[in-house]
Amino acid sequence: MRVLIFAAYDGTNYKGWQKQEGFSTVQGELEDAIEKFTGRKTEVIGASRTDSGVHSAGSAAVFDIDIPIPGEKIAFALNTYLPEDIRIMRSLEVPGDFHPRHTDTIKTYSYRIVSAKIADPRTRLYAMNVHVHLDTALMQKAASYLEGEHDFRSFANPDTEVTDFVRTIYNIDVNEKKLDLFGDSSLIEIRVRGNGFLYNMVRIIAGSLIEVGRGKIKPEDLKIMLERKDRRFSGPTAPALGLSLERIEFPELEKICSDL
Amino acid sequence: MRVLIFAAYDGTNYKGWQKQEGFSTVQGELEDAIEKFTGRKTEVIGASRTDSGVHSAGSAAVFDIDIPIPGEKIAFALNTYLPEDIRIMRSLEVPGDFHPRHTDTIKTYSYRIVSAKIADPRTRLYAMNVHVHLDTALMQKAASYLEGEHDFRSFANPDTEVTDFVRTIYNIDVNEKKLDLFGDSSLIEIRVRGNGFLYNMVRIIAGSLIEVGRGKIKPEDLKIMLERKDRRFSGPTAPALGLSLERIEFPELEKICSDL
Repeated sequence: MRVLIFAAYDGTNYKGWQKQEGFSTVQGELEDAIEKFTGRKTEVIGASRTDSGVHSAGSAAVFDIDIPIPGEKIAFALNTYLPEDIRIMRSLEVPGDFHPRHTDTIKTYSYRIVSAKIADPRTRLYAMNVHVHLDTALMQKAASYLEGEHDFRSFANPDTEVTDFVRTIYNIDVNEKKLDLFGDSSLIEIRVRGNGFLYNMVRIIAGSLIEVGRGKIKPEDLKIMLERKDRRFSGPTAPALGLSLERIEFPELEKICSDL
Repeated sequence: MRVLIFAAYDGTNYKGWQKQEGFSTVQGELEDAIEKFTGRKTEVIGASRTDSGVHSAGSAAVFDIDIPIPGEKIAFALNTYLPEDIRIMRSLEVPGDFHPRHTDTIKTYSYRIVSAKIADPRTRLYAMNVHVHLDTALMQKAASYLEGEHDFRSFANPDTEVTDFVRTIYNIDVNEKKLDLFGDSSLIEIRVRGNGFLYNMVRIIAGSLIEVGRGKIKPEDLKIMLERKDRRFSGPTAPALGLSLERIEFPELEKICSDL
């Protein structure tokens, strides 16, 4: 049977999702755990990759196993074989021809920033530390220019084989939450939901919005960046550790399930 | 001059606050950093100790240095010599006879619990994972019996040289926040503010409140636990990693400062 899993991980100690000889990767750990559980080598097909150091609250992937066990129990079985920084949060049986990259998906990423002169060390692996105050109202205004269907070439790492740079961002929300102690610090979360993302796209969006937040550029400059269709005109790529793949939705699968 | 610092740390990789030969400790790292900065061995006097694996958002300590630098700049100077899991959040000059253990203090601890069948791995070092739902309204009710001045012998590790077990808890707040994904999970924070704490006191209070939250005992049982004055009648000691020393207040020092 084909199983769909949603895996959360602390990406700190992994060289990203995709299996690579000689490195610890999330895909590699998942395949090792499945082999320990089933006794067979099995390929895990991910819906998307994450880079080295990027985190996830629910990366989707499928694989096939022939052990008679209810789909929803597989998460618990495999977690006993996985390192504690990777957890399968949910598992379910899906149709045998379901492929997570050959179906429409909606993905939500978050980019986290701690704005503080000195950041609490417990945030150091999960948020970028910016030492100045960021104006989140300006960042939200800037983000609104990116919502909708656009050619996002300016927000893609040029080292890509992709030729179609048009993607749709349904919404970007910039939220700020005061942190407890030493009054000047806050946690800022940029949440981006869209139908597809180019290489480094969320990190370049975050880096550009931070430039707005610190007052180096104006919100309207994001509109100009988009129009240029050239990576040289957008902001820096924000560090990997602030990025987290939060959620993957499969509209067609949800339709099948609701039709059952 | 005498300097008061507030240090935040990720306690994961330390054998607690107090210096011990052959182990990494927070006090040891601070003394090493001061020696690198000043060229002299200097004792760091903490307001309180934390156990192995316990975290802190602002442990207070004092030391003496004779380098002419404004008190508030010392945090930034020492942070350049400290490992990244310890940060001095704030530093200030205090009167030369100020001693953080010979003055009244008010301390706030938090105990964090992730209630989830499967917890996001990014919380694994900073919160205890309880796999069932906890009723936080019952926990809050139970906590109210501990507020005020009481003999907390039932909530102290008996391995102590203390003979006076009377302490005052000003308040205990139990807060619950839904976590994003996979609906059944939440972050529960127990915040305890008081004028003094016995060995393992907050962890035993947390362990006892969790017993209430999962329905194994009733809120009123906390009142009976207190009255017994015997550790055998209270709940288990919750694991160190959920505990964090959040804040230390020095009322007398605040009075001096406001009088200046």
